[in-house]
Amino acid sequence: MTARRVVAFGGGHGLSASLRALRHCAPELDLDITAVVTVGDDGGSSGRLRAERGGLPPGDLRQALVALAGDHPATRRSAGLFQHRFAAVPANDAPANDVPPLGETDADPAAARADGLAGHAVGNLVLCGLMELLGDPVAALEHAGAMLGAVGRVLPMSRQPVGIEARVRGADPAAPDEVRTVRGQHQVAVTTGRVESLRLTPAAPAACAEALAAIGAADWLIFGPGSWYTSVLPHLLVPQLADAIVSSPARRLVTLNLAAEKETLGLSVADHLAALRWYLPELKVDLVLADAKAVGDPEPVERAAESLGARLVLAPVAVTDGTPRHDPAALGAALVPVLGADR
Amino acid sequence: MTARRVVAFGGGHGLSASLRALRHCAPELDLDITAVVTVGDDGGSSGRLRAERGGLPPGDLRQALVALAGDHPATRRSAGLFQHRFAAVPANDAPANDVPPLGETDADPAAARADGLAGHAVGNLVLCGLMELLGDPVAALEHAGAMLGAVGRVLPMSRQPVGIEARVRGADPAAPDEVRTVRGQHQVAVTTGRVESLRLTPAAPAACAEALAAIGAADWLIFGPGSWYTSVLPHLLVPQLADAIVSSPARRLVTLNLAAEKETLGLSVADHLAALRWYLPELKVDLVLADAKAVGDPEPVERAAESLGARLVLAPVAVTDGTPRHDPAALGAALVPVLGADR
Repeated sequence: MTARRVVAFGGGHGLSASLRALRHCAPELDLDITAVVTVGDDGGSSGRLRAERGGLPPGDLRQALVALAGDHPATRRSAGLFQHRFAAVPANDAPANDVPPLGETDADPAAARADGLAGHAVGNLVLCGLMELLGDPVAALEHAGAMLGAVGRVLPMSRQPVGIEARVRGADPAAPDEVRTVRGQHQVAVTTGRVESLRLTPAAPAACAEALAAIGAADWLIFGPGSWYTSVLPHLLVPQLADAIVSSPARRLVTLNLAAEKETLGLSVADHLAALRWYLPELKVDLVLADAKAVGDPEPVERAAESLGARLVLAPVAVTDGTPRHDPAALGAALVPVLGADR
Repeated sequence: MTARRVVAFGGGHGLSASLRALRHCAPELDLDITAVVTVGDDGGSSGRLRAERGGLPPGDLRQALVALAGDHPATRRSAGLFQHRFAAVPANDAPANDVPPLGETDADPAAARADGLAGHAVGNLVLCGLMELLGDPVAALEHAGAMLGAVGRVLPMSRQPVGIEARVRGADPAAPDEVRTVRGQHQVAVTTGRVESLRLTPAAPAACAEALAAIGAADWLIFGPGSWYTSVLPHLLVPQLADAIVSSPARRLVTLNLAAEKETLGLSVADHLAALRWYLPELKVDLVLADAKAVGDPEPVERAAESLGARLVLAPVAVTDGTPRHDPAALGAALVPVLGADR
């Protein structure tokens, strides 16, 4: 049996869940995993590094690398190092390990300035240093992957960082009918208005050549779960990626989210699928994987899946504590018959 | 033949030269190398990290790790990453890889503040993160050593950072006869006055237990080259280390510097040996290794060596371009007959 080549698209926690699930079925299915990651982040540690030093925002790339990190105790420890976030400590004070670490996007810029490291994940600094040292993000990610014994490869969707902009109705809760342009991935991700259209700046960034090659050689392309507007759809807005996705001989799977996020408030599960079709009308999908509980009445979701050419597969893929998070083992178990099936 | 256990003491560039030389003869002599490193740095990147985040100043530890990094291309690249220093870039500007990196102790604090990363070596941030994550500098150094495929072990002389203070005559060039207290390793290292006495704060820091064990089990203890007051002598001022050094069954080698540094202006080669005896009168030395050109008239150096119980060995150990730097290959070649000789 030759390896099944799987390309997973996304960013942040959603892609991380997808990659962890793929790792669960990798031994059984002999998977060759490539992650293609958004490069639009402008919040938190990544946003500061991007603004201050240029280059790609490293946070989503780091998360994907860590999700693929090897199981050896030493590589697990290196993965822990990559995720370690420097806490805010007042200047000239002793280290305060009990200070809660700042979240990726919740960092108070004023507090963070007090100490240049506060809020940064070590892995972000390592990736930033590697990109400066080696002069190329793909080479940097390859080396970082080796440092973590990664079982798979992480690529950026583009070698250049992109901006994300949305036209949002009701971005200002006081003017619910007004449509405004919301700029920046972080602002789009936290808007509670309704996203009416999405675009990248520049509008047509060059795709990462290695990502195009991986898509062309893939057996499966996997979209989602993840923040729909800021982690899943951006790939479809890169013209070269969209072309490669449409023309790839690979089968295509969409894994739906378990709950709406701020940016997708008011968007039904079926609407998520419709959005894929809206931004890439030529997209054909083979399978849509969703959790029965999150879907509720499956009928509209089935119809939305059919309009993409896909069959809906329902499986219990959430953690059992009731929070809307994918369980890597459960999602992996659901993926085995899907990815393992003959055409 | 069982491995010869060598413990090298120092900090900064001098220790780095010693370790690189030991690596050169490691295969021939089957050396088991341990570096015991000063923890007094308060300048540059290390000084900022120590002041802002507590913990050990990482720069000298990083230099020792990099000197021992493995020869595999991946570990060489990781060593390059550890040494990569973030340049100063104006806030909100694109990255400027052509801006000269700031030196360890030459960083302009005002410029460095403009961007929290400027002036920091990536390896310093990795060590800082590992010490926070693992809660112990020895565990952090063990993991960092594994990341670099290090051929040997790096230990701090103490798990607590120390201060270095000196009584210096003529610290102020305008008052050449006045004796002043100069505080901090960096200030002592750059003083052009004459150091009359040296002490640590606290005066008796606890030695790193693993360093004590390595000294007790060693076949050779190696002191120097390096900044005499700030990298070589501090170990002798830690009472537990001094006791372990004196009572170890190991033979003892002193490698002399090639030129006086700012802190040792006015100190002759023989004076360097006398300083060892002054700060640890019980110290017995077996061999003193020096470059004939740096020594000039060997007679006073021979006498100073004899007063420590040592024989003077002269060998060409400098680089050939005339700068006062040890050539690792030449120093290694000189060490082979020394360390390889039977007792």
